[in-house]
Amino acid sequence: MQQLEQQLAFIRELDELKAVHRKALVKCDNNRFENSAEHSWHIALMAQVLAGYAEEPIDISRVVSMLLIHDIVEIDAGDTFAFAPQQDLDAQSDKELVAAKRIFGLLPEEQYQQMLNLWLEFEQADSADARFAKAMDRVLPLLQNIVNQGGSWAQHSVRKSQVLKRNQYLRNLAPKLWDYIVEQIDMAVAKGWLIDD
Amino acid sequence: MQQLEQQLAFIRELDELKAVHRKALVKCDNNRFENSAEHSWHIALMAQVLAGYAEEPIDISRVVSMLLIHDIVEIDAGDTFAFAPQQDLDAQSDKELVAAKRIFGLLPEEQYQQMLNLWLEFEQADSADARFAKAMDRVLPLLQNIVNQGGSWAQHSVRKSQVLKRNQYLRNLAPKLWDYIVEQIDMAVAKGWLIDD
Repeated sequence: MQQLEQQLAFIRELDELKAVHRKALVKCDNNRFENSAEHSWHIALMAQVLAGYAEEPIDISRVVSMLLIHDIVEIDAGDTFAFAPQQDLDAQSDKELVAAKRIFGLLPEEQYQQMLNLWLEFEQADSADARFAKAMDRVLPLLQNIVNQGGSWAQHSVRKSQVLKRNQYLRNLAPKLWDYIVEQIDMAVAKGWLIDD
Repeated sequence: MQQLEQQLAFIRELDELKAVHRKALVKCDNNRFENSAEHSWHIALMAQVLAGYAEEPIDISRVVSMLLIHDIVEIDAGDTFAFAPQQDLDAQSDKELVAAKRIFGLLPEEQYQQMLNLWLEFEQADSADARFAKAMDRVLPLLQNIVNQGGSWAQHSVRKSQVLKRNQYLRNLAPKLWDYIVEQIDMAVAKGWLIDD
């Protein structure tokens, strides 16, 4: 059963994503840093709950699949802060493609191609499914920062324009969510958690 | 937007599952205990990778949805060891139903009913989708115990017959996986990680 051994090698490798730490804190668990595995779970469920706000047709099962795999590349490439300098983000993209080929490459050929293509679609945001998935990946940290009184924004001097730009996928795709997010961003500025610019 | 507020309250509540700790260890992250949120992510992806072994028709997107929500009740009810005495497992079931009603009840009525029904279907294992989902929930800890040289089996003196019984859903549903699992269990007995009985 060579195919099963390949699949199990991939499944075992996934454990490593539980050791990739993000900037967000899990308040209820001794304020430790969140890891990318539990983050992926959280946004996959969030996407199911909020799917009804999408005003373009989306296939929620594809969105969920994208969100489950979108961070796996961080096993090799690590997590880069969303508001890092552009040159760091570009270097990260190159590392992530190499990582995707190695890690999805543990799978049998057909599944490798499927996962790689799904991950590329997400990265390039070139479908409504991918844009909705990306929006979920970006909205949750925003909600977490609000709960944590500014959280990683306050610690890293993030500006309002950066957060608006990062959440722009929502504007046309899910205008009701966009309106809510803009309200939340304005509230964060008023509280001094985000720098107005 | 009362509906959105309800949905966001549910999404925020999910953070608490990251603080529910299981018996399995995450070796690559300082041997800490795994939490139920990252576990749910892991088995949802595992189900997608192994879906092809199901010999009854399954709807993998329903299986993934079940796996994403199946442990949420542990936010209130906590995690009970799979091989705890039967009376503890029965008491756990009662607590979990109360928990499901409270936590899924944070959502708007229609989503509440959908999630509750999906969770009940999983719990009662009364469809091929639910049985495949349950099988994934049970196979992964087995693979983890093998990697960890017996892991929680060795620590809690678990017997071979208990593990076979717990994985029985696979026998008819995915016979190729079942054969592999039986081999692994026999290997674990030979190594002294499981008690032969």
